[in-house]
Amino acid sequence: MRTTMLKLYFAPGTCALASHIALQDAGAAYTVERIDFKSNQQNSADYLAINPKGRVPALVTDRGILTETPAMLAFIAQSFPQAALAPLGDAFAFADVQAFNSYLCSTVHIAHAHRMRGYRWATDESSFADMKRKVPDSVGASFALIERGMLRGPWVMGEQYTICDPYLFTLSQWLEGDGVDLAALPKVMDHRKRMSERPAVRAALAEEQG
Amino acid sequence: MRTTMLKLYFAPGTCALASHIALQDAGAAYTVERIDFKSNQQNSADYLAINPKGRVPALVTDRGILTETPAMLAFIAQSFPQAALAPLGDAFAFADVQAFNSYLCSTVHIAHAHRMRGYRWATDESSFADMKRKVPDSVGASFALIERGMLRGPWVMGEQYTICDPYLFTLSQWLEGDGVDLAALPKVMDHRKRMSERPAVRAALAEEQG
Repeated sequence: MRTTMLKLYFAPGTCALASHIALQDAGAAYTVERIDFKSNQQNSADYLAINPKGRVPALVTDRGILTETPAMLAFIAQSFPQAALAPLGDAFAFADVQAFNSYLCSTVHIAHAHRMRGYRWATDESSFADMKRKVPDSVGASFALIERGMLRGPWVMGEQYTICDPYLFTLSQWLEGDGVDLAALPKVMDHRKRMSERPAVRAALAEEQG
Repeated sequence: MRTTMLKLYFAPGTCALASHIALQDAGAAYTVERIDFKSNQQNSADYLAINPKGRVPALVTDRGILTETPAMLAFIAQSFPQAALAPLGDAFAFADVQAFNSYLCSTVHIAHAHRMRGYRWATDESSFADMKRKVPDSVGASFALIERGMLRGPWVMGEQYTICDPYLFTLSQWLEGDGVDLAALPKVMDHRKRMSERPAVRAALAEEQG
């Protein structure tokens, strides 16, 4: 159990919400600091000194600064074992959790990012428009795979709530904006609804808006 | 320590090499099975039954099948603790390792994938051409960040060789093809050279070609 204060840098509506919910789930002592994307604060000298990647989230710990949602979620689970947020002692089950989160990070989130951040991978306006048109399909296909087999129910890994759940919830916030057909995702939508009723989720969302 | 046989599905020249090297590093008992991308075997019914994502790598264990390189690397480290491939008992240091690998997976590999796999995120030939033109910049920028601060030397995490090293080595194989200026990456190139001389790396590469 950690006794020092953690500090989470976030922006509303980003994947930082996953770690924020996990900190709540863990009962961690933490503060949050909002980075203002409208003024491009993520690329300010001050913030680049915290995270040279110019992204959120970043988590300040007494040992140094962590980035990358899957790593931060595993860190929170490992730092607060009493919260039982991951099967830490079972290499296969833990890898199963991590594989799910890695898929969210490198496939689902990336598909979504092509709607607004096409400049990372292309230059022409016509390419950005093309990428945007593809998002309902690419995000929809990645969520279809989750719906079909990866989300076991009631939680991602089955009966046990884990660090997969806040991350899936966070990315499922973007489905409407990405133009995905929600009717094709009943399990994902049920998961999203149950998550939204959890006090930890409500507390994190309230802090984001506060 | 595991006593059962592991089986790695791979294709030459893919990120499966990272797990392959780690299995060698771990002294694991394993077999490999090559998936033929030329005949689109990754999307065959037989292979989709193993990995519904239609990708490599996949690792068959006695408990089930694992995918996603960062998760597989952590699994190998955790399953073979005597090989000391990750600081397993130190939540911060382990998260630091995982953050590096997550960056390789979701930023570096993704930037690279826009050279050949633009169809995942767009539809038009003109977009694919635009994406290809951006790859030297986007992959170059992500490796510049590694060069500047993330690769501590001599190994990624400093004095201790970890599961970050085979993954960085694997992705650094693609630099020439991606049109990145190697002269700007002396630490990455030195790391690549030292990795290429390790018996575990030679053995994995020989098995890929065998």
